[in-house]
Amino acid sequence: MRLSAVLLFCAASLTLAGGVSVRSLLFSSESASNFVTVQPQKPLDLSAFTLCLRLATELKTEQREIILFAYRTKYYDELNLWRELDGRIGLYLSGDGVFFQMPPLGSLQTHLCITWDSLTGATSVFMDGKKSLTKIYQKRHNVRSGGQIIIGQDPDEYLGGFDANQSFVGEISDINLWSNVLPDTVIKAMADNGNTVQTGDVIDWSVANLEVTGQVNVVNRDM
Amino acid sequence: MRLSAVLLFCAASLTLAGGVSVRSLLFSSESASNFVTVQPQKPLDLSAFTLCLRLATELKTEQREIILFAYRTKYYDELNLWRELDGRIGLYLSGDGVFFQMPPLGSLQTHLCITWDSLTGATSVFMDGKKSLTKIYQKRHNVRSGGQIIIGQDPDEYLGGFDANQSFVGEISDINLWSNVLPDTVIKAMADNGNTVQTGDVIDWSVANLEVTGQVNVVNRDM
Amino acid sequence: MRLSAVLLFCAASLTLAGGVSVRSLLFSSESASNFVTVQPQKPLDLSAFTLCLRLATELKTEQREIILFAYRTKYYDELNLWRELDGRIGLYLSGDGVFFQMPPLGSLQTHLCITWDSLTGATSVFMDGKKSLTKIYQKRHNVRSGGQIIIGQDPDEYLGGFDANQSFVGEISDINLWSNVLPDTVIKAMADNGNTVQTGDVIDWSVANLEVTGQVNVVNRDM
Repeated sequence: MRLSAVLLFCAASLTLAGGVSVRSLLFSSESASNFVTVQPQKPLDLSAFTLCLRLATELKTEQREIILFAYRTKYYDELNLWRELDGRIGLYLSGDGVFFQMPPLGSLQTHLCITWDSLTGATSVFMDGKKSLTKIYQKRHNVRSGGQIIIGQDPDEYLGGFDANQSFVGEISDINLWSNVLPDTVIKAMADNGNTVQTGDVIDWSVANLEVTGQVNVVNRDM
Repeated sequence: MRLSAVLLFCAASLTLAGGVSVRSLLFSSESASNFVTVQPQKPLDLSAFTLCLRLATELKTEQREIILFAYRTKYYDELNLWRELDGRIGLYLSGDGVFFQMPPLGSLQTHLCITWDSLTGATSVFMDGKKSLTKIYQKRHNVRSGGQIIIGQDPDEYLGGFDANQSFVGEISDINLWSNVLPDTVIKAMADNGNTVQTGDVIDWSVANLEVTGQVNVVNRDM
Repeated sequence: MRLSAVLLFCAASLTLAGGVSVRSLLFSSESASNFVTVQPQKPLDLSAFTLCLRLATELKTEQREIILFAYRTKYYDELNLWRELDGRIGLYLSGDGVFFQMPPLGSLQTHLCITWDSLTGATSVFMDGKKSLTKIYQKRHNVRSGGQIIIGQDPDEYLGGFDANQSFVGEISDINLWSNVLPDTVIKAMADNGNTVQTGDVIDWSVANLEVTGQVNVVNRDM
């Protein structure tokens, strides 16, 4: 049994090393016009989620805030993820946010996940597979469907009202969204193995339709 | 088939752990006269490349710039890699460079790779297997053959015009150059396993002819 | 044969994770009287060596120098390892030392190794498995037998002349000495796996006779 476990382990490593290729978005300069809309696989009607992405940016802490992920319905920022001015990761589910002090993002790729569960309000951030402390946030809330997912800009209306000073500059890829909280070990495996292992049921980055507006390079990234 | 692949993989790991030995170049002091020329396995006529090396230096950021790799034809710096004064990694393909903010190089060995692809212009740096953001640089350019590869000095002419203030001081080894962009996982494996796994098709460090001028120690390094 | 070696290798990795226990020396306060002598398995007549140990200290860089390992014959500091005042790691083989800029030691355990080879003079430091640049030092020298190994104090004579301001304060363990240069991969494995994999042929910490003088706690440390 021990032997077969070893072989299974090796086989897994081998398969993963095989070379998955994912699309990666390059935002080369600050703008209020460059962005990408993402078409999810199903509506964002969520009582729990795991959002993961890989990103690198040369914008420094204290330089300015950066929008990492925006999902907005007509009147609400339903699920927005920020790198705050002071370097904290901020999550906003319709209203005031919850914040996590984290090691700084930088020009080397970081694997970032955030998990949230309506039932308990438990919210955690994972950086390169390492889990933050858990905070209680928006217990019994629900993320509502009918909105638009935007990468690169923070919409202050349904699809517009962009501010260059909040735009994303750098590279972002492998954005997956699940309608449940993934186990810590699964998130760690994603971070370590350099590929998604699983893709999201809500946003599946391997097939999601992307629509580019403005100057955004879409390159393939071998994982 | 999968099983045999697994065993091959394990065997490979084992073999590699067994002690590959590579030549390592020690530049003990600043000079305008110590350098090593490297004879490639084939001409550097490149529409894509991966350049990897291992290095350590006690020269600090903000102390001065350092040449890491120079390939010069008669009139052009065809493929030059620098640690800039401010600590950024700079790549120059005939003309202005592209720059990457990186964690500082230091006296502990760093595995450094840079990949470039003419078709898309996608350029990325890898430090100890971790990938930087991608930048678009010199799309549709071609690196030209007929030049000279020099380690330790920056030639301002075909083979001369050296400046001690730009010379490399420290240890550099395992310099391999491929004519394609290697997958991220292959680069990560090289960094993690402490060996090359593959050697370059353009520069194969295991066999490349090295010619030392001046005071450079060539030692063997067990990987 | 290759297959069985593979399985053996995998099995070994598995076994090693099992929980080796080693003796660990606690030096709780500064003194000129607390020290431990170590009885080696064979005389220190060395034309090459690898010295490894694990240590943690709350003494800060710029606070003072710290002796890490002392092997002294009647008139010479034959093989002394220091954390210098400025934080560098210094090795002294009878005379002036060689110095390596390193990340700071601290209150978290660091695995530290130093390798030296008489034939080439190649000297390198490893911190947590990461190799420094190599320096050329004391080529064709020989470490002489007939001395005394002391942990915790720097003897200015055969066994005495201690200075509290140079004493070791903190925890030190798993001190092994080999009469050859170990491959980088073996040193990395020791650092990563949290155990020695091999024990030294000159000092084998698992069996070496230790004699405590003064206030030094000897505790068991599970690896």
